Amino acid sequence: MGGDHGCTVAVLGVKLALEKNPAITNILLVGREPEIKAALASSGLADPRVEIIHASEVLTMDDKPLEGIRKKKDSSLVRAIGLVREGKADAIISPGNTGALVAGSMKLGRLTGVERPAITCRMPSRTQDFILLDAGANAVAEPLHLAQFAVMGNIYAQAILGVARPRVGVLSNGSEETKGNDLTREAARLCSQLDLNFIGYAEGFDLFNDNVDVVVCDGFIGNIVLKTAESLSRAIGHILKTEIKASPVRKMGALLAKGAFDGLKRRLDPEVYGGAVLLGLDGVVIKAHGSSRERAIASAIRVAVEEIGHGINKRVEKEIAAANAKLAAPAPNAPVHA
Amino acid sequence: MGGDHGCTVAVLGVKLALEKNPAITNILLVGREPEIKAALASSGLADPRVEIIHASEVLTMDDKPLEGIRKKKDSSLVRAIGLVREGKADAIISPGNTGALVAGSMKLGRLTGVERPAITCRMPSRTQDFILLDAGANAVAEPLHLAQFAVMGNIYAQAILGVARPRVGVLSNGSEETKGNDLTREAARLCSQLDLNFIGYAEGFDLFNDNVDVVVCDGFIGNIVLKTAESLSRAIGHILKTEIKASPVRKMGALLAKGAFDGLKRRLDPEVYGGAVLLGLDGVVIKAHGSSRERAIASAIRVAVEEIGHGINKRVEKEIAAANAKLAAPAPNAPVHA
Repeated sequence: MGGDHGCTVAVLGVKLALEKNPAITNILLVGREPEIKAALASSGLADPRVEIIHASEVLTMDDKPLEGIRKKKDSSLVRAIGLVREGKADAIISPGNTGALVAGSMKLGRLTGVERPAITCRMPSRTQDFILLDAGANAVAEPLHLAQFAVMGNIYAQAILGVARPRVGVLSNGSEETKGNDLTREAARLCSQLDLNFIGYAEGFDLFNDNVDVVVCDGFIGNIVLKTAESLSRAIGHILKTEIKASPVRKMGALLAKGAFDGLKRRLDPEVYGGAVLLGLDGVVIKAHGSSRERAIASAIRVAVEEIGHGINKRVEKEIAAANAKLAAPAPNAPVHA
Repeated sequence: MGGDHGCTVAVLGVKLALEKNPAITNILLVGREPEIKAALASSGLADPRVEIIHASEVLTMDDKPLEGIRKKKDSSLVRAIGLVREGKADAIISPGNTGALVAGSMKLGRLTGVERPAITCRMPSRTQDFILLDAGANAVAEPLHLAQFAVMGNIYAQAILGVARPRVGVLSNGSEETKGNDLTREAARLCSQLDLNFIGYAEGFDLFNDNVDVVVCDGFIGNIVLKTAESLSRAIGHILKTEIKASPVRKMGALLAKGAFDGLKRRLDPEVYGGAVLLGLDGVVIKAHGSSRERAIASAIRVAVEEIGHGINKRVEKEIAAANAKLAAPAPNAPVHA
């Protein structure tokens, strides 16, 4: 209910997903029943796998996360999280208020040994993709959190990108060891003790240059990087369009080269990547892009199916336990709660 | 001497700059005399305004900043900074080691009232430009530093972008007041007390969206944003080229639309923007892009000429004094050394 385009696009996305993913046995549409029924009718979706779970309230972008989930007990978000908690659903997918989704999802509980969940994004690089986490679940992080993000991101990259030994880096203001701040230095020290293909610091230049597969940072910076990248991509698209419109010859050229522009757009489109995953919780939580259209909703559902199929959470619990054991000799300022 | 392409491109850049800027009375080329002489000869530059100042050593990217400037007293960087300090030059322009330039430039002393210098970059947005600072002089910053960056960035945007009341924002992980961390919250509180068109938090989405004219942040994040943006721009260029090469029709289209691609490239090219300014020091210090070619060197020289012409440093001293006076009632954790 909470996305920028209301529930009709969500229903259209579900329709797409059901056509594409035979593995899906059930989709629960949680929200205001009359609106969902209308959306189902208008989109021509009548599938026995779809079930409506009525929830009378909606969390909007104006709701403060914690206050919202506390006050709006019958919101689609709170109800959907409840369904996962009760084992009635394997995953929640929401295009709504990110803060509320993160805050509400904490009710699922963290996986054993995990200190903090992290918003985990798949992003396009030159010729391949990379994983960025935390893209915004925690504005402030400690070194151990970043080390655990590295472990979780490594598992995710192995499963989703299919990279056997992902190159894992800590995002910093330069690749040299002398760069960074207290957080990155200690995080890098911890990461270097783990069973990872740890490459040390990754700097901004490395992100979109095929140089790294997993980039860890605190959610403050991750959020800025994610939004900066999206904002710049759009600006470049805008500038290019304006330049093309400047002459009829350019317009004709662009028409001939349309396939190339479409390819670029597909490559960068957040709707194709579809969903950021909230890793580290006892449940599968997918944040679909706020401006999600049906394709993005379908992609987010696909991401959930992948995460479940790869058994990411079981692997996270196992490898976090191993990592915590390795780091068990407590470092200064970074007590390990194993 | 220290750029990625050695001193020939620097000399070619100087040649370009001298042709374009009649305001320049003198350019001192500081470095190994034989190499500079050879470069002058090969580039056909014989201008009475050009003078060679011999310096036998070169600081490379491998030199640790502080150690480098301490050990290599006869490096071109240390000598050039000395010339500004002694009043023999108005500005230093270097494409070399940024850390060494920042560390070495501290010898110029800070402008009265300024706590920290900031690397200040002009960056392209959709249809206009914006100013980002600090792009990497200080990995760690305090709220007062960010407030002073806001004052300096405001002056710079007024002078260089020609915006009467620049919109000034503190970079954060969301535009809502509830977002941010301790640093951004206190910095925003200080900024709101100053004579600025302060718009509160700017998030990543705002950067390349014509939404803000001056963005302040600590140098750790600023460096990441700057490099991420450059890395993504290049990746997009690479992807687009690959897509175009995929078919002869696309290639022909791209040829017809070449003007549009050239326009986009010009708009985004760091070489056109040419130089980041180290604001807050008693002297004009310009960091040319490390991979600078002659056009970038010429742009960096233009940036220096502009900064001198607008009397930025005098205005900074005056407005920082006023800002410090306004903030003189010390806030917790942010003592004002006025």
